[in-house]
Amino acid sequence: MFRQLFDTDTSTYTYLLADALTHEGIIIDPVKELHERDLSAIRELGIELRYTVDTHVHADHVTGSGSLREATGAKVITGAATDLICSDRLIADGETLTFGNEVLTAIATPGHTDGCTSYRWRDRLFTGDTLLINACGRTDFQQGDSGRLYDSIQRLFAFADETLIFPGHDYAGRRVSSIGQEKTLNPRLADKDRQAFMDIMNSLDLPYPRHIDRALPANLTCGLAA
Amino acid sequence: MFRQLFDTDTSTYTYLLADALTHEGIIIDPVKELHERDLSAIRELGIELRYTVDTHVHADHVTGSGSLREATGAKVITGAATDLICSDRLIADGETLTFGNEVLTAIATPGHTDGCTSYRWRDRLFTGDTLLINACGRTDFQQGDSGRLYDSIQRLFAFADETLIFPGHDYAGRRVSSIGQEKTLNPRLADKDRQAFMDIMNSLDLPYPRHIDRALPANLTCGLAA
Repeated sequence: MFRQLFDTDTSTYTYLLADALTHEGIIIDPVKELHERDLSAIRELGIELRYTVDTHVHADHVTGSGSLREATGAKVITGAATDLICSDRLIADGETLTFGNEVLTAIATPGHTDGCTSYRWRDRLFTGDTLLINACGRTDFQQGDSGRLYDSIQRLFAFADETLIFPGHDYAGRRVSSIGQEKTLNPRLADKDRQAFMDIMNSLDLPYPRHIDRALPANLTCGLAA
Repeated sequence: MFRQLFDTDTSTYTYLLADALTHEGIIIDPVKELHERDLSAIRELGIELRYTVDTHVHADHVTGSGSLREATGAKVITGAATDLICSDRLIADGETLTFGNEVLTAIATPGHTDGCTSYRWRDRLFTGDTLLINACGRTDFQQGDSGRLYDSIQRLFAFADETLIFPGHDYAGRRVSSIGQEKTLNPRLADKDRQAFMDIMNSLDLPYPRHIDRALPANLTCGLAA
């Protein structure tokens, strides 16, 4: 089972994955304000939620992980380098989460933040803000490092061209891409070497994130202090 | 197993699908000029080719189906309404092809041509020229009928938003979309009723297809007379 849910306020994608037989499942990047939507989807699909997983400490929305843990008993998972004391488990590169006969594998992809982690399930990558469709996460705050981000994206680009990309956001309504598509169309990456990518990232001159002052401290408590 | 191959000359996507255990497989929309590429991919993956399937009688390229039948013994499959005497089987709406434990299901989607057939495998739709990313096939030749095409696309739109779209072509390098994405972003379909869609299609004023005079007669022989 697979569902892709969208938050129109922050353009955040939340993903629900479950074993079709046992209904054990995982949610990736839930949004606190959409707690009821997510609970409804979980109940409607009959999912027994094992884990709520964040791709990173978000600056643009408050995570729904803590609320979903309280409601369902799911364990809260974040990347090892997030070092979040509210997490039940800090997951390192290559480690896995199992739900029924399905497996989700963590891939440490620092650069947008230190703790950014992408996740692989079957032939799908959930890339959070590491790799977006035709774009990538910014690197100008939260330990952002454009060189490290480039290296992380190259790790993702080592997957087969057919590997599907499910991003953490899209601001133009797009929902899915593939490694092959991003290699050839992503304007920050296609035919760009590490230095050219860093030059692009370092000249973006982006506005201050509108939710960061509320979201960051809240997310250090898995959203419970929001 | 799943591979998405691209013809840079006609921007045609060819798909290879196979059962991971038995290696029995299917090719969708092979291009005659790329016979050697396709044979190499089939051999490299160890695929025992059961079927070569065309989504329709193409006007823009010559099918590789006849050549692949000669090389591999695969059966040539086309949609029932193509009425092609060179086919080994005309497949009707709802009928299936099995390869190992995998199943491909035909969905009659007339409109671009009478015989246009989309195919479903797992949560993936191979839509040929019926539904393209942000576009659709033209309806101004080859029994084209914009009203029928609209009705066919609505049948595809009845699938879940997460259903992946693998089109027959893309002229901008995009490789994959989803039903949810096309419902909201496809400029010919988002918020368009049947009449509005027909008006758009009937005013496109497209150039004469550059390969049609060679491709159409050749494809009536499964590419063997080309």
